[in-house]
Amino acid sequence: MATTTRPTLTDIEQARERIAGYARVTPVYGSDSLSRRVGRRVALKAENLQRTGAFKVRGAVNKLSTLAAEQRAAGVIVASAGNHGQAVAWAARELGISATVFMPQDAPMAKVDATRNYGAATVLAGAGFDEALVEALARAEETGATFVHAFEDETVIAGQGTIGLELVDELPEVGTFVLPVGGGGLAAGIAIALRARRPGVRIVGVQAGKTGRGTIADGIAVKHPGELTMAILEELLDDLVHVEDEEICEAITLLLERAKLVVEGAGAASVAALLTGKAGGDGEVCALLSGGNIDPTLLISVMRHGLTVAGRYLVVRTRIADSPGALVELLELVAAERGNVVSVEHHREGMALHVGETEVELTVVTRNDDHCSELCAALDQRGYPLERLG
Amino acid sequence: MATTTRPTLTDIEQARERIAGYARVTPVYGSDSLSRRVGRRVALKAENLQRTGAFKVRGAVNKLSTLAAEQRAAGVIVASAGNHGQAVAWAARELGISATVFMPQDAPMAKVDATRNYGAATVLAGAGFDEALVEALARAEETGATFVHAFEDETVIAGQGTIGLELVDELPEVGTFVLPVGGGGLAAGIAIALRARRPGVRIVGVQAGKTGRGTIADGIAVKHPGELTMAILEELLDDLVHVEDEEICEAITLLLERAKLVVEGAGAASVAALLTGKAGGDGEVCALLSGGNIDPTLLISVMRHGLTVAGRYLVVRTRIADSPGALVELLELVAAERGNVVSVEHHREGMALHVGETEVELTVVTRNDDHCSELCAALDQRGYPLERLG
Repeated sequence: MATTTRPTLTDIEQARERIAGYARVTPVYGSDSLSRRVGRRVALKAENLQRTGAFKVRGAVNKLSTLAAEQRAAGVIVASAGNHGQAVAWAARELGISATVFMPQDAPMAKVDATRNYGAATVLAGAGFDEALVEALARAEETGATFVHAFEDETVIAGQGTIGLELVDELPEVGTFVLPVGGGGLAAGIAIALRARRPGVRIVGVQAGKTGRGTIADGIAVKHPGELTMAILEELLDDLVHVEDEEICEAITLLLERAKLVVEGAGAASVAALLTGKAGGDGEVCALLSGGNIDPTLLISVMRHGLTVAGRYLVVRTRIADSPGALVELLELVAAERGNVVSVEHHREGMALHVGETEVELTVVTRNDDHCSELCAALDQRGYPLERLG
Repeated sequence: MATTTRPTLTDIEQARERIAGYARVTPVYGSDSLSRRVGRRVALKAENLQRTGAFKVRGAVNKLSTLAAEQRAAGVIVASAGNHGQAVAWAARELGISATVFMPQDAPMAKVDATRNYGAATVLAGAGFDEALVEALARAEETGATFVHAFEDETVIAGQGTIGLELVDELPEVGTFVLPVGGGGLAAGIAIALRARRPGVRIVGVQAGKTGRGTIADGIAVKHPGELTMAILEELLDDLVHVEDEEICEAITLLLERAKLVVEGAGAASVAALLTGKAGGDGEVCALLSGGNIDPTLLISVMRHGLTVAGRYLVVRTRIADSPGALVELLELVAAERGNVVSVEHHREGMALHVGETEVELTVVTRNDDHCSELCAALDQRGYPLERLG
């Protein structure tokens, strides 16, 4: 199923012509506050603003455009519950090709709906991704439809590589490029284009999460580079670093608050590598935001977590007398310290409390870490026993 | 303090030259899912991606660029706890002019910090905006610094009008433009440019919130058009409509989820007017997203509310036996209906419960309204008494 030929600069230049009018040339933004945080000029390539919300349409359009007439007539098949499936569905509709997307049975309904809304047939098959893949390959075999792999395909890689050509035009001064690595097609394609056109730049790949457990950066965590992509990355990357979920949460929150951009976990990994200094190099740096398809309920959790880490939420447990006025007294003290209480929870059961005492858990919006510490110190000084939860 | 001359197309064209290299030419995005929802092609002008996160830098740069040398030397003063203050601070730094920003004493620290980070001096003066304004005007009088009004100023209005020139270039096919109206400078400037270059288009202004009470769209709710801007709007707008907070919440959530853009309340009002059909007209329509400066803790509340309205959260109260296994039974039923439980709260006190009974409040992530109804029906069928809270 996988091709083992590596795309050339010419392949990528041809891809650029093919995808013009389908994929967007995405904008690049400088960010003052991110630059200040990181200590070097930071440019963000906003591929989250790409059609379908991720870079994958580039490879999908390039692949589908190069199919012969009889292949187009037979349609395409993919196995994906994510961005690749949506991108192929979208590209197929644009090019008048029928697409069938296989997903695991427990795929989130939002993703199934999005894929259907782009006009693809969806098949929920198998307990996990591997089972869905087996079914998809069998169906392709049966029907003569073309199976489109997400990254082990030179034409797909060439499509993703068009980002590299845009970067060369958009950021002539930048010396370091930080790219997320999942299956590796994105980073491989961009690296080929950059090495050919700007040989001396530093190119860093970023992987996220641990194998075998869930992560916020699900788009890159569940995948490993393939043979083809890994061979390219080993040759062309200067470094391959890892970031943790915690670091990605902070990056997502920062991008949202400062750059006004919604970015999914995998899409924020590059910024996490900058914030932690793992990206290395010096001078102006470009972080690729690969996609923005994050479930809003997950985004809420990530933001709450990111804000807590940044000292913008304080979650603190204390004990007060179980009598009229005691809670008011506590809350007045918090207000005097200019903390904005967003939730108050009382706990009276299952704990080693004195009779006539109640436990209270407060969630307070704060300015930053220092403000959290000041607020805690003020409570402590007034004799409130404190257990800080976040 | 206010000038009463109305800017001309020539003023706006000159402003465009002055702000080039400072303000960004912001991108325009089509949105498939928004277009489907609204039933007509929708283009979004993403002024939330403007420098400092809002359109205000256009007017600020234009105004400060036109000051004479001695005026520049004396510096500028503004009264604003929001986008205008940040924009003038940023423009002043870029142009090497000193800026002082007056804010009410209770201005959010995040806004004070942002303004300071752009290099302005900040003065916290007075209980509310009006008091801060009085202090700012007095200081300008004393020091000879130039007071820069947010909208009652023809040079500021001409700066905001540059968006209109960009729209003419970017969206030659669009027949309806929907613009937020706060102080009115933005809509007035754009309307002058559009009427001059594309006289036949429909231009709709959108106001949000009620006078005298807080609103999510604080950027446009606390302001009223001035004399100069109102005179322009009365002549040039085809319609002026109102949207409610509820509608703005939904628009913010939709922009975040589908367009991957963070937009503040005032910035989403135009999309709210489209979603509710209040904008009127037919054919392709452009909604101006005026800014993205929303506090992330507020954004979390807005998203939770927006998702609840859209049926993506179900908050439901029921009663179960206060005995081992009862909660598991309830949660298994919810899981079987593919609801994803995000919080479980027990209430045992202060309620008319039978002995041996406990009240449980569940928050469940759901797909849509239909899914909420199905889940409720399943619980009802199994005999759980239900009170739906969201």
